Amino acid sequence: MSTKIKTGRLSLNTKGERDILDITSGVQDEVTRANVKNGIACVFVPGATAAITTIEYEPGLLEDFPNALERLFPKRIEYAHERAWHDGNGHSHVRASFLGPSLSVPIIDGRLSLGTWQQIVLVELDIRPRKREVIVQIVGE
Amino acid sequence: MSTKIKTGRLSLNTKGERDILDITSGVQDEVTRANVKNGIACVFVPGATAAITTIEYEPGLLEDFPNALERLFPKRIEYAHERAWHDGNGHSHVRASFLGPSLSVPIIDGRLSLGTWQQIVLVELDIRPRKREVIVQIVGE
Amino acid sequence: MSTKIKTGRLSLNTKGERDILDITSGVQDEVTRANVKNGIACVFVPGATAAITTIEYEPGLLEDFPNALERLFPKRIEYAHERAWHDGNGHSHVRASFLGPSLSVPIIDGRLSLGTWQQIVLVELDIRPRKREVIVQIVGE
Repeated sequence: MSTKIKTGRLSLNTKGERDILDITSGVQDEVTRANVKNGIACVFVPGATAAITTIEYEPGLLEDFPNALERLFPKRIEYAHERAWHDGNGHSHVRASFLGPSLSVPIIDGRLSLGTWQQIVLVELDIRPRKREVIVQIVGE
Repeated sequence: MSTKIKTGRLSLNTKGERDILDITSGVQDEVTRANVKNGIACVFVPGATAAITTIEYEPGLLEDFPNALERLFPKRIEYAHERAWHDGNGHSHVRASFLGPSLSVPIIDGRLSLGTWQQIVLVELDIRPRKREVIVQIVGE
Repeated sequence: MSTKIKTGRLSLNTKGERDILDITSGVQDEVTRANVKNGIACVFVPGATAAITTIEYEPGLLEDFPNALERLFPKRIEYAHERAWHDGNGHSHVRASFLGPSLSVPIIDGRLSLGTWQQIVLVELDIRPRKREVIVQIVGE
């Protein structure tokens, strides 16, 4: 088998701050469509106010995780970002830089090698609803 | 040379919360076994209560890093995750989502391109000892 | 087209703590030089007191992000790392392990798939000026 590169894209609509979307099946669909048996999927969100990570996607943690973000990077404190932009999302930017926009997951026998209770999520950090495009870059054979 | 994909696996036993395992030589062994000269190693831990990162693996930081986790994501505060699961590890999940389960390291001339004082670690975040399997997905030539 | 692996390197001088360098054009130059149309760029900084992430590179956030680091991982508290090393950078190490040394970005049509306001940055976390070499490992076709 020879190595190939395939690009998948997921188009998503978020509800703004505290919205977390389970994109696991969307990413797996792109892997399946790419017909790659073994390789790496690089999941990436363009933009400076969103992030990609993994979580057990259950209602409790969908509260706990945003609560931790608010505790560590409060919305109400002053952000220098406001001076130039006045768009009220300085905290969103700082949170995004901490969490990061990228996640790489091994593909084995055509499946993402996630744990049973581990889902891939897009974390919306901006204060308003956004259209997001997530890129799934697949390298494999 | 043609590009190839190789999958390595490390089987590990952790002691539960605050345990951090140096897996650098295990990852390097998989790279060596894969006989890859140049490429990328994607180190990934399946599961929602563990993480992969790098650290200078010395006794002081093996205290400082868990101390910071406890300061930022205290065990004693309330987590909504408890409502459904009552397993006392809501903080473990939130910490894992912050740190992330994945690390990609360049391979150059058959070696991981780490700094001299930089080791790859598995961070156990769950409250009890766990068996963990770390996947080392190697793409290279 | 066949897949290839190319290694680029950026040599940088930092001013120490709170210095954040926009390396986007440097990384893009390596991608262009590699003549890769589609693939993944793995941007990695060897060393245990620096990190790679993305941010909107504007003066406000270049204050807000280091301010958040100082709020979450204060310099003035005690670090066990000091016991062995007495080099005053325990907080730098802990911050680096949180942020991580690695970022993977899809390459599409020869371009890094970043958002318009999203730049790749090297975050210097050490307390003194450092020479840094950032590795750009490119896998693609």
